Amino acid sequence: MDRKKTIETISEVNQTVLIKGWVHNRRNMGKIVFLDLRDRWGIVQVVAVPSELDQASNDLLKDIRPEFVLSITGVVQKRGDKQINKDLATGTVEILAKKIEVLSTADTPPFEIDNEERQANEELRLKYRYLDLRHERMKHNLVIRDQVISFFRNYLHTQDFIEIQTPILSKSTPEGARDYLVPSRLHPGQFFALPQAPQQYKQLLMVAGMDRYFQVAPCFRDEDARSDRSPGEFYQLDMEMSFVSQEDILDLVEKMFIAMVKEVFPHKKITQEPWPRLDYDEVMKKYKTDKPDLRKDKNDVDELAFAWVINFPLFTKQTDEDKFIGAGKTWGPTHNMFTAPQEKDLAFLDKDPSKVKSYQHDLILNGFEVGGGAIRIHDMKVQEKIWELIGFSKEQKEQFKHYFEAFKYGVPPHGGIAPGIDRLLMVLLGEKNLKEVTAFPLTSDGRDPMMESPSTVGQEQLDELHLQIKKK
Amino acid sequence: MDRKKTIETISEVNQTVLIKGWVHNRRNMGKIVFLDLRDRWGIVQVVAVPSELDQASNDLLKDIRPEFVLSITGVVQKRGDKQINKDLATGTVEILAKKIEVLSTADTPPFEIDNEERQANEELRLKYRYLDLRHERMKHNLVIRDQVISFFRNYLHTQDFIEIQTPILSKSTPEGARDYLVPSRLHPGQFFALPQAPQQYKQLLMVAGMDRYFQVAPCFRDEDARSDRSPGEFYQLDMEMSFVSQEDILDLVEKMFIAMVKEVFPHKKITQEPWPRLDYDEVMKKYKTDKPDLRKDKNDVDELAFAWVINFPLFTKQTDEDKFIGAGKTWGPTHNMFTAPQEKDLAFLDKDPSKVKSYQHDLILNGFEVGGGAIRIHDMKVQEKIWELIGFSKEQKEQFKHYFEAFKYGVPPHGGIAPGIDRLLMVLLGEKNLKEVTAFPLTSDGRDPMMESPSTVGQEQLDELHLQIKKK
Repeated sequence: MDRKKTIETISEVNQTVLIKGWVHNRRNMGKIVFLDLRDRWGIVQVVAVPSELDQASNDLLKDIRPEFVLSITGVVQKRGDKQINKDLATGTVEILAKKIEVLSTADTPPFEIDNEERQANEELRLKYRYLDLRHERMKHNLVIRDQVISFFRNYLHTQDFIEIQTPILSKSTPEGARDYLVPSRLHPGQFFALPQAPQQYKQLLMVAGMDRYFQVAPCFRDEDARSDRSPGEFYQLDMEMSFVSQEDILDLVEKMFIAMVKEVFPHKKITQEPWPRLDYDEVMKKYKTDKPDLRKDKNDVDELAFAWVINFPLFTKQTDEDKFIGAGKTWGPTHNMFTAPQEKDLAFLDKDPSKVKSYQHDLILNGFEVGGGAIRIHDMKVQEKIWELIGFSKEQKEQFKHYFEAFKYGVPPHGGIAPGIDRLLMVLLGEKNLKEVTAFPLTSDGRDPMMESPSTVGQEQLDELHLQIKKK
Repeated sequence: MDRKKTIETISEVNQTVLIKGWVHNRRNMGKIVFLDLRDRWGIVQVVAVPSELDQASNDLLKDIRPEFVLSITGVVQKRGDKQINKDLATGTVEILAKKIEVLSTADTPPFEIDNEERQANEELRLKYRYLDLRHERMKHNLVIRDQVISFFRNYLHTQDFIEIQTPILSKSTPEGARDYLVPSRLHPGQFFALPQAPQQYKQLLMVAGMDRYFQVAPCFRDEDARSDRSPGEFYQLDMEMSFVSQEDILDLVEKMFIAMVKEVFPHKKITQEPWPRLDYDEVMKKYKTDKPDLRKDKNDVDELAFAWVINFPLFTKQTDEDKFIGAGKTWGPTHNMFTAPQEKDLAFLDKDPSKVKSYQHDLILNGFEVGGGAIRIHDMKVQEKIWELIGFSKEQKEQFKHYFEAFKYGVPPHGGIAPGIDRLLMVLLGEKNLKEVTAFPLTSDGRDPMMESPSTVGQEQLDELHLQIKKK
């Protein structure tokens, strides 16, 4: 007999079914034992009555504990009116067990899976992440994560976008945050870097004529963690388009997000449509932040206040806390050194850079920035001017030689955006931390207590990579 | 006026259209200039007649060369019967230009984009990959790659699979090939490793109760390149299922692949359905290889001979060329140390390990292995026995402590497979090298001549990572 694949679909009374799953809990009522059996899709109550079971099953029954994996053959029967559980999809029925097999035993878990108090101990939760993920909320978060990503992919395909995988073994360039490095074995003393974002690749794909590109792209920044910033890796919905205006980009993303909310979160309501377009100067004056929470009711987790912030200054004065790595003393790019200045302000590049507005657009949601992008510079003369103002040295420009070279061969005007998938999900799911929407996150100090990584490696491995650890 | 988004759809005679794209070529016929304009979707002939153009356009016209990016407003007109080009989707029409703007100029490319002889110089092609990708065949390969991956994703979602992203900053373990390492800044002397495959994560997701998982997963092996093995990174369609038999896995994958071929490659024919299931011993006796090319006509690139190879030996004698890293002297796992032995052979584990057959399954296609997988061990006692036979030391076992721990808490029987996406596409697209189906591949000696990576990094970066380069 084949397994009844999803427990939630059990309903046909008097049918004999084979189900497999985990013991969610066990209750003894005299000689009768009630087991709730759980699989990915649901939970069903199993009634084990000694007289209905074969001898082998009866022998096993007494030892069965929570989180054992069982195979149960039984008959679906209606529950009495008083036993109906409206919280369960299968709450009107139960399975009268005929045969029970133990597929795998289980020790007592280090925390109660069903108890949200386990959240207090992050270290333990991450060490036993495979148990933590058994909790309904965590499973739900991963299921919704997949649904949101799938929705975006399918939507973008209907809009003629192509998904292209760009390299993860990439190049270290002075682009803002700190790179993770990967030493090369074949080229002694040289390193790959994990991409902070596929920014240059996506622009080069525009040069290649791909026109409409996207990627659910892993990104890596070796930065200290915050609740809304993962240490290590995170994902963004990286998008780039050719021959578009800023308005085209905002319009496409806004339509896509509204359609996604309607499909995946039909119970949520969007505060204002079309989304407000906020001028950076005005928003700063009014809210003292460039990511204000625009919900009518700030406590309503089912309210979604999306907005665009535009007309950012192209340059920001460098400060010690927010210093653009590799740049000079005065001006850093407010967002990204490839962002185009607005045409009307080009003359200010020489006269007063602080007055130049950019084609940057930030997407904000309930007080979080959930995406940023821009129309890019497609004229190398403008790019060189920007680098000059940032204070790039000859050596630093040299690191972008390929970019300079590419821009000689016919560059389409282009722009894009990169919504952060993890942060977006955190807000949509009403979670307070990115770790709740990631299958296997690192701890805040950048460790995986489950795998015990990072870890020391053998001397032989280091020798092959031409490296040695520096003594303190 | 909005851009006519895809050039290939131009057809309505007398309509005024705005098109944007690259000059594919230019032909002068006296005063009349013919320009083929190219975008991602197609090519259309533009006729530039001086009397039809405004003065600014006429002034620009003489300087326009191949690979310039233009914006052209013009009227669609029918071509004369003799001018019809049946090879072009737009071959019955042409655009009579009214206004031409240059969006971007272009130097003469370092190779003729339309000429396949550029293939001779891999270094140059990869250095100017953004130009190489402008070739119709390369663009087509990326489009098909996306279609194949999308097909798999959508198919697996209909089968109740969930896609989950597993960590790329992972742990170094002795699993076969050489790891890429990523030094940790926060934990001096310690390293992450890039995953050779998400093998352990997917098994832990089964322990977590996810039941049906997949991921289009980036994988990393620091191995020397071959035409059918990428240096650096590659992608696999990583899949794992709980409560399944080997037959369930083969059946699902076979149905999915047949449906994919029918949809994305309707002109290709599959040699035999259902696919042959070949016994490893027999296939080796008959063909002297475990991946025979079973096409009826070995020269037919549109023939697809899929087959399964099963009943592999669990162990292989270690050789110097194919040594299982970290193992002892005698036995290495034929495929993967988590592969389950067939129940009927369990007794041979003690008596004669060479006689133990495994639940490994390899998917072969036209002489290539395009995927492998297995039913996994879900009983830690069996796993320990395998490690003992492989000759794992205490220290090596210690690196799998987490795995050992996880297996205490209710492990479902599970198994999976991981078709290699790049290699599969190479065969399906009739290409001879993986680089033809990858957007930005590394050279065979592991470099990216475009980005010039790997590269040296600053002393400050090394200091932060507590590393120094070893002097020779």
